[in-house]
Amino acid sequence: MATAAPLTPERILEATEEVLRRHGAAKATVVDVARALGVSHGTVYRHFRTKAELRGAVTKRWLDRTSVALAGIVTGSEPPEAKLRHWLAGLFDAKQHKAGDDPELFATYTVLTEENGGVVNDHIAELTGQLTAIIQQGVADGDFASPDPALSARAVFDATSRFHDPCYAPHWSRPGIDEAFVAVLDLTVRGLRA
Amino acid sequence: MATAAPLTPERILEATEEVLRRHGAAKATVVDVARALGVSHGTVYRHFRTKAELRGAVTKRWLDRTSVALAGIVTGSEPPEAKLRHWLAGLFDAKQHKAGDDPELFATYTVLTEENGGVVNDHIAELTGQLTAIIQQGVADGDFASPDPALSARAVFDATSRFHDPCYAPHWSRPGIDEAFVAVLDLTVRGLRA
Repeated sequence: MATAAPLTPERILEATEEVLRRHGAAKATVVDVARALGVSHGTVYRHFRTKAELRGAVTKRWLDRTSVALAGIVTGSEPPEAKLRHWLAGLFDAKQHKAGDDPELFATYTVLTEENGGVVNDHIAELTGQLTAIIQQGVADGDFASPDPALSARAVFDATSRFHDPCYAPHWSRPGIDEAFVAVLDLTVRGLRA
Repeated sequence: MATAAPLTPERILEATEEVLRRHGAAKATVVDVARALGVSHGTVYRHFRTKAELRGAVTKRWLDRTSVALAGIVTGSEPPEAKLRHWLAGLFDAKQHKAGDDPELFATYTVLTEENGGVVNDHIAELTGQLTAIIQQGVADGDFASPDPALSARAVFDATSRFHDPCYAPHWSRPGIDEAFVAVLDLTVRGLRA
């Protein structure tokens, strides 16, 4: 079953996510992905050399959806404190949606992130890098005080773990979670103020 | 095998912990506990009516060891900010020791806390109550600003989750964890300052 559209890495990753959604992380195979695309599994392996590489790439794509959306906040024109609040609320909102809108796919990606520690570390470095940029701007504007913006960024990221770390996903739909988030957000922002 | 010492609830809980240490949460039985004490299982049931009640009580005893040790800091004579730092460092230290000194018993108690949600909620209420008392003192002394010390206490507890929530136990022995803790501690304390 040949297909007319050119076989790009992005199309393979789309098909992989669909196969993961249908079969789960344990059962999804490269043969399933190839079948969904109407190509041989050898063709898939020309783009991703191993099953592990394909799983790492689809995990990265899933995580990138969040960091790409947040990058727009970093480069926006809001003052630093509003930007920081907006960014942290955006991260929490993205995670709540990922976990709540499609819990099975979220569980599948939770398994995949556990087997792709390097991809996750790069993602965390990307996110804390964005936070560092916001804090640096706040220091430059005289709104924030921080002798080491990268360390402060890591502290802000760690202090808000309850609202983005998948180990807390079952909490994100509980009553009171938004009030708890705002309380931590206020504490964190106050902690950065000059 | 009769024993001379009187059979107190505390002695039963000690024996239960020893049985849990030896057999793990899945395999430990009330018969094992009775055998360790040289009594019949009916005798154990006169003190704890069900296996679930016994498991809840031993879980509470394990959690209380931390909160009792921290209570002394709350009633101490340090200024509020030092007290808060001391208390949070004491909580992290207690958790690091529980997880690191006897990882198998820690894993066993992690299973037990999952099946005893009510006991865990009481423990968290006890800990955030202690934090509330420290923050109230700070507000009274003019060192901290907080319109709602109980809400601030919950925010401080949530913001430091990475350093006391068992889901992060594998992180507590990693390089850089102490620096990360101090960064979150500094951010949190600054966030409370008047």
